Amino acid sequence: MSLDLARRSQPTVPATEMRLYAMDAWVADAAALVDRARLRNALRDAARLGHVDVVGEAFHDFPNGGVTGVLVLAQSHLSIHTWPELRFANVDLLSYGSVDGHVVLETLAERIGCVRTKITVVERELG
Amino acid sequence: MSLDLARRSQPTVPATEMRLYAMDAWVADAAALVDRARLRNALRDAARLGHVDVVGEAFHDFPNGGVTGVLVLAQSHLSIHTWPELRFANVDLLSYGSVDGHVVLETLAERIGCVRTKITVVERELG
Repeated sequence: MSLDLARRSQPTVPATEMRLYAMDAWVADAAALVDRARLRNALRDAARLGHVDVVGEAFHDFPNGGVTGVLVLAQSHLSIHTWPELRFANVDLLSYGSVDGHVVLETLAERIGCVRTKITVVERELG
Repeated sequence: MSLDLARRSQPTVPATEMRLYAMDAWVADAAALVDRARLRNALRDAARLGHVDVVGEAFHDFPNGGVTGVLVLAQSHLSIHTWPELRFANVDLLSYGSVDGHVVLETLAERIGCVRTKITVVERELG
């Protein structure tokens, strides 16, 4: 299957708009989903390339090998929850301003070896 | 304005379904949004009442008094980002299984003094 990031070319969001980018992602190799260091690097690289500023983080390893990783951002948060037994992950980015959410998701998808993604963008309120 | 949590009575989600609950929330008093300890307690109480298990957390204080708080859950994550200057907050809960997302959001809304909320539920993939 080809990588499906249909909205990747969407324009940058103005500073007054808040958006949630929800990505459900299927990967070729579950090894990408059980390696906390690799996931942390992937999240941080995705944040950097999407012009997101990281101000904190929290990670947790689950008994099945799955990992939850959350980066706290100056522009909200970026999270991943992995399901190695399903070769699957849920990714969420809440952001505003000059953040390019699709660059963040595309970078992360590439770094964990996605073969298919489903992205939902939710327009959020801001004040 | 009255509290608007229209979907609060929705049935519990089966273990095979993943959902994102996105809540945009307006509060009466900005003081609720700049107090990290109060927000942390509100998040943890909401998690407990919604049968969510907390396995980690990360918080960050911003120069404008705003706070970002993320709880890492056995069932994914619960986050809040506050905008005291707008008396406003964005809340996200990603969950599955026996979690009652609407109880989590309702509890949190009450604890931070919401006068209005807008909730969007996104059905997510899971494998």
